Amino acid sequence: MLDTILDAGRVGHLATSDEDGQPYVLPVAYARDHDRIIVHGSTGSRLLRSLAAGQPTCFTVTLLDGLVLARSAFESSMRYRSAMVLGSCQLIADDDDTLRALEVLTEHLMPRRWADLRPPLRKEIAATRLLALPIAEWSVKVSDGWPEDEPDDVGLPIWAGVLPLQHVFGAPMNAPDLAAGLQPPDYVRHWSA
Amino acid sequence: MLDTILDAGRVGHLATSDEDGQPYVLPVAYARDHDRIIVHGSTGSRLLRSLAAGQPTCFTVTLLDGLVLARSAFESSMRYRSAMVLGSCQLIADDDDTLRALEVLTEHLMPRRWADLRPPLRKEIAATRLLALPIAEWSVKVSDGWPEDEPDDVGLPIWAGVLPLQHVFGAPMNAPDLAAGLQPPDYVRHWSA
Repeated sequence: MLDTILDAGRVGHLATSDEDGQPYVLPVAYARDHDRIIVHGSTGSRLLRSLAAGQPTCFTVTLLDGLVLARSAFESSMRYRSAMVLGSCQLIADDDDTLRALEVLTEHLMPRRWADLRPPLRKEIAATRLLALPIAEWSVKVSDGWPEDEPDDVGLPIWAGVLPLQHVFGAPMNAPDLAAGLQPPDYVRHWSA
Repeated sequence: MLDTILDAGRVGHLATSDEDGQPYVLPVAYARDHDRIIVHGSTGSRLLRSLAAGQPTCFTVTLLDGLVLARSAFESSMRYRSAMVLGSCQLIADDDDTLRALEVLTEHLMPRRWADLRPPLRKEIAATRLLALPIAEWSVKVSDGWPEDEPDDVGLPIWAGVLPLQHVFGAPMNAPDLAAGLQPPDYVRHWSA
């Protein structure tokens, strides 16, 4: 279930905490690479610097699957899947590992795109800062049920059920500077959101 | 822009940090109530207890709007809107304020649902723990652009553009214990995901 959740998301929330105990939570693009999570950081960000220094972190991915409409506000809730990973990140410093992790990240976010792209330049790899968070301490929470109203409420004339939430991609939009005659690749039609 | 982002989301990520500087990030349902954020906590959770005690927190909402497909991995990115609010929560202890906040929360998550629901019982209000986070210190980040490839890359025979991500509700699903003859209410068709 952990891998299923991690592999279904594209953006997670990564936290750090300063010396006063003030947490900061930022959205990051990520991919699971076997037993570690690859996170893309922006060079020079405070978050990345403190995480690369080994500060304890928490990485959480949440997928919202639907709304659960019960007969009372108290029992109304949501369907969701959430994964939390605790640990410390390591900066991927080696160029070869950076290149491989960049491919894993790109292929997770945009499957089959890597082969189409102009290959990374040496200077781009040098400017790319990726973090790896080992998947060692983690927890998962899943809510996938139906309304659980009290027996007295079930007979009330109030509709109850689930409204599923779907995440889908719309039609590809050409870049304004796209060269004439180029069509969106077929593989984008198979991407799941 | 802050209010637009907060009002468009249903789930945010709320953080706390323990005495060792270990952050924890949990998904929570929320609603904006004027200049504060109402957060629904589960009674007895460690997160809620430490937040109700005034621990510094960070609340982040992220809306993923699409994938930006450039000609290189380096320039590939995402369209997103994110809001981060820093501060300390207060436990809503008063029953009247809890009831009003519960209505705000329910009406944000499920607009027009409140009037249909069986009204909250006194014991339910007593068991509901809501937190309020004042919106005082905050920041917003928006990425809504197009691929920004280097001039040398624009002429390559690689499609570039944006794949918009849409969040939509599917058809309502009846609860297994739904009384015969009840239909999903019309208002759910107008909910935006």
